[in-house]
Amino acid sequence: MRLPEHLGIIPDGNRRWAQDRGMSKEQGYDKGINPGLSLFYTCKELGIKELTYYGFTKDNTKRPTVQRLAFTKACIDAVKLLSKEDASLLVIGNTSSAVFPKELLPYTKRQTFGNGSIKVNFLVNYSWEWDISSICECNDTKPDLYKNIHSSDISRIDLILRWGGRRRLSGFLPIQSVYSDFYIIDEYWPDYKESHIHDALNWYNKQDITLGG
Amino acid sequence: MRLPEHLGIIPDGNRRWAQDRGMSKEQGYDKGINPGLSLFYTCKELGIKELTYYGFTKDNTKRPTVQRLAFTKACIDAVKLLSKEDASLLVIGNTSSAVFPKELLPYTKRQTFGNGSIKVNFLVNYSWEWDISSICECNDTKPDLYKNIHSSDISRIDLILRWGGRRRLSGFLPIQSVYSDFYIIDEYWPDYKESHIHDALNWYNKQDITLGG
Repeated sequence: MRLPEHLGIIPDGNRRWAQDRGMSKEQGYDKGINPGLSLFYTCKELGIKELTYYGFTKDNTKRPTVQRLAFTKACIDAVKLLSKEDASLLVIGNTSSAVFPKELLPYTKRQTFGNGSIKVNFLVNYSWEWDISSICECNDTKPDLYKNIHSSDISRIDLILRWGGRRRLSGFLPIQSVYSDFYIIDEYWPDYKESHIHDALNWYNKQDITLGG
Repeated sequence: MRLPEHLGIIPDGNRRWAQDRGMSKEQGYDKGINPGLSLFYTCKELGIKELTYYGFTKDNTKRPTVQRLAFTKACIDAVKLLSKEDASLLVIGNTSSAVFPKELLPYTKRQTFGNGSIKVNFLVNYSWEWDISSICECNDTKPDLYKNIHSSDISRIDLILRWGGRRRLSGFLPIQSVYSDFYIIDEYWPDYKESHIHDALNWYNKQDITLGG
């Protein structure tokens, strides 16, 4: 079976999940932490080489404060849990903004935990405009775009999985996503099941990868 | 009904369509011209304000010469047909390369035909790297990315339709696509039907547009 090397994870639907259960929207976010860890274990076991989680974005921080605090805490908790695992971990986002959580600053340089067997990237206060704007400083007429973005340590993505049914990127790593395959799961992220990964990989195995050729 | 203002069109599957009929691959391309014109009429009638066709890319030009010549001719013919309609027409792509067809150079500055009732963009010898690399020349620490790319005259895209079943962007306008919804049609482009558009618009009407918020 042809495995993707790098999976992009868009864990959407936490608020809708909470509302469906009569909870307030912000109560959905911490229900996404265990799914993230389960997915990590499954991918590591399967031999996936790199995982990128879409934590939260600058766009997301415009939401009500109670939500912003809840998704920020969920991201902090998730990164701390991942740092106890066997992974090479990096948090990427705009750290110069007040909404970037100080607790995650130590992770904004890649660190190896355990044997660093799988590369894990976690986007926190990420913005596609912030990411790409650094191309402006490259002073090169034929720039290598992959090298000149803020997220240059994140590889090209083979397969993007999005939970919650929406069929869009919502600003997720536009440069690394130019050739990615997209796989949409209708269930909300807190309802993550291991079978979602297997179904996505079976689908990916049948795709013809051309890189635009 | 909430209509998208700008549709992106990825007309894929011409080669597979030809092969299914025992034709050689390159014979599929000119079967995509009439569908493109039908789609134009339907969108204009519906009141769509802007259409962008994915003609061919720099990546595509690596294909066998017989195919390159066939898709180049199909794009020239399509643009010439569109120039007889009521549209504001622009061809965008890297004109400094030898594979850019000279016949289309007059269209690389936007021209109004008829009343120019609908904005139509046609990507020819397009490359996402070429498009974005011009950000490098902007000399501004906080650049407006939409204004500094080569395709700055193409607006943000609301809905991208791709024929031929593949679920990927294949390098299509990465900046204008960051918030776009994706709608995939399994049928090949030469099998275009007006119902594809209506189905896509009905689907789009039910989506919740957040622009990442």
